[in-house]
Amino acid sequence: MALVVHKYGGTSVGSIEKIRSVAKKVAKVRDEGNLVIVVVSAMSGETNKLVAMANEMTSMPDEREYDALISTGEQITSTLLAMALNSMGYPAVSFQGYQIKIVTDSAFTKARIQRIDADNLRKELKAGKIITVSGFQGVDEAGNVTTLGRGGSDTTAVAIAAALKADECIIYTDVDGVYTADPNICPNARKLDRVTYEEMLEMASLGAKVLQIRSVEFGMKYNVPIRVKSTFVENEGTLVAKEEDKVEAPLVSGVAYDKNEAKITVVGIPDRPGIASKLFTPISEANINVDMIVQNISAEGHTDLTFTVPKSDFKKALEIVKKIAKDIEARNVVADENIAKVSVIGVGMRSHSGIAARMFDLLSKEGINIMMISTSEIKVSCVIDTKYTELAVRVLHDGFGLGK
Amino acid sequence: MALVVHKYGGTSVGSIEKIRSVAKKVAKVRDEGNLVIVVVSAMSGETNKLVAMANEMTSMPDEREYDALISTGEQITSTLLAMALNSMGYPAVSFQGYQIKIVTDSAFTKARIQRIDADNLRKELKAGKIITVSGFQGVDEAGNVTTLGRGGSDTTAVAIAAALKADECIIYTDVDGVYTADPNICPNARKLDRVTYEEMLEMASLGAKVLQIRSVEFGMKYNVPIRVKSTFVENEGTLVAKEEDKVEAPLVSGVAYDKNEAKITVVGIPDRPGIASKLFTPISEANINVDMIVQNISAEGHTDLTFTVPKSDFKKALEIVKKIAKDIEARNVVADENIAKVSVIGVGMRSHSGIAARMFDLLSKEGINIMMISTSEIKVSCVIDTKYTELAVRVLHDGFGLGK
Repeated sequence: MALVVHKYGGTSVGSIEKIRSVAKKVAKVRDEGNLVIVVVSAMSGETNKLVAMANEMTSMPDEREYDALISTGEQITSTLLAMALNSMGYPAVSFQGYQIKIVTDSAFTKARIQRIDADNLRKELKAGKIITVSGFQGVDEAGNVTTLGRGGSDTTAVAIAAALKADECIIYTDVDGVYTADPNICPNARKLDRVTYEEMLEMASLGAKVLQIRSVEFGMKYNVPIRVKSTFVENEGTLVAKEEDKVEAPLVSGVAYDKNEAKITVVGIPDRPGIASKLFTPISEANINVDMIVQNISAEGHTDLTFTVPKSDFKKALEIVKKIAKDIEARNVVADENIAKVSVIGVGMRSHSGIAARMFDLLSKEGINIMMISTSEIKVSCVIDTKYTELAVRVLHDGFGLGK
Repeated sequence: MALVVHKYGGTSVGSIEKIRSVAKKVAKVRDEGNLVIVVVSAMSGETNKLVAMANEMTSMPDEREYDALISTGEQITSTLLAMALNSMGYPAVSFQGYQIKIVTDSAFTKARIQRIDADNLRKELKAGKIITVSGFQGVDEAGNVTTLGRGGSDTTAVAIAAALKADECIIYTDVDGVYTADPNICPNARKLDRVTYEEMLEMASLGAKVLQIRSVEFGMKYNVPIRVKSTFVENEGTLVAKEEDKVEAPLVSGVAYDKNEAKITVVGIPDRPGIASKLFTPISEANINVDMIVQNISAEGHTDLTFTVPKSDFKKALEIVKKIAKDIEARNVVADENIAKVSVIGVGMRSHSGIAARMFDLLSKEGINIMMISTSEIKVSCVIDTKYTELAVRVLHDGFGLGK
């Protein structure tokens, strides 16, 4: 008897009829003799409706209240799915984040799971129940409702799979796997049968929205193989797992892009020790994730510092930076929201050089200017003007021979 | 500095704009130096929408899941109201039933409050916060979400007022108080300045939907004066409180009616001891409230037993009764949903006789047949054909001189 954790995204549970279909799929898995936990997102459109209510109420919703508000979306789905299963004769019980103690920190709207007290889950599984769980939500030590950020239901599923040492964790979504590039941009993009956690992490952090980053981190940390599959198309999807011993890993596995960042440059900073810390400490304290940071060589005792932040935090970050810029006597702050980040990713690149050079060459041949560069062991990213995004993705996808 | 508990019903918080108006009213009360707790219902239409989803999913929704589903309506209002207050510069924090431990029994869809652990409320009040509370919901000992039945938000408000020994408890609603009869039926109905808990209890149990019964019981038990006021019209409303020492209380304070009951008759029951218990124990175990019970004198060793139940429980009750009827060898079961109960209520009737006789006389003069009769110290109720309801109410209202 296997213990399986399945997760269904918003489009998979987007109507009563669709929830009923999911119930049938779940019942079939139960009939095959498995213990089943199903994590669900809000019905598609529901979260946006709740967000719109908050924004209609005020331009700066209190984050504690915001989380308690939007978490209701998942509560609706998990209870409806449990009802559907019960009505089909499959005993089922729904759980909210606070009921199974998915304990998170208190960083509202982007909380991180710290632990799961799986006793309630074990008890109900033992009693033969199918368990439906509201994804995306948790509870902090003080008992406040928190949410895990967009895509957080993936993390809920993987974290539960890790906590219960589940035999299988499948993320059912509206795409049928991980591709070498966005098929909307590269019609010849290939579905990958398997990617490593590291590659998936880079892809997720670069905007390939198949899985939430935290879910991949959880999978990697606790070695939970995650299968990404389509709810609507029958195929094996893509397995996200640890690296296999192969003679030859491909140099580049995929091309990703991200249009959700904005760039802030602090110009003419007096070049003194401790400046970077003065700048980034308050940004981090405001719970804003800084992604790329580039500092130019100092000229005449002054330096420029450029970094990127998520567009959703852009206003907040800019406000903080402008205040600090005055304190540290910087000359100016300039910002740019019209940027995109394109990246090539592959574990094979660890043992090969020349990937970055080849990438710069491919971009320059199309006349695409590179504004910032960032590299890791298994990826190279370039920030470019947003209008070249699709062109850049296609050029890199073909240039590295990723097409069918 | 007074501690006040105010409750706003569904129509009072029926849109973002209306919630904002409530926030302004609440802020004003805070400005006057009060500590404020605001209990809210779901936005009007929201609960019905959730109920419709459950009914679309299955004809017999699991009750645990049903409660967890429909409780989301109040969660939306309480968080939006807290957001509105915060955005106006009034620190506010929302609480769900489980967060302030409104502990109930496990009778899903009609749970009863057992205790409130008011520590969280006291802490936040002390910190200067306005508190918004989701009405209608609680949590049982096992941590399951429960709901208190239609109108349950009133009970939440009064129970919190009792737990915190609040100085004031106001129920803001879409009517401006308690009337001598339904003004839609009797255009000359008068608003009462004051009614006793006992009268209000009878009125509420008879279908005058101003306050939920449990809320009046709580008020009476803990001596919390409850003021019913309109959100939209400025007047003093009606105070529900204990009886004043007056030389002369009016004989009859009001006329009420209830179309939400159905009648079940078990015909030809062998007249043996223990039959009534055999019949009503399983009904009570199914959490169905039986209201009136009438048993006829036995003839030829057989008797008939008639009783009323809420229409919402009618099907369930009938199913149970049919099964038992077979066991106890009753001849037949007949049921009637087309009934109404009309009642006259007044604490003054305790010390006067003849009210019942006068009532029967008034009804018979209009040719209205009385099917069942039930009396208490302060009310007389008659079950009649539903089509005579409005006529009966008007006849009684005028006959007892209640008009303006």
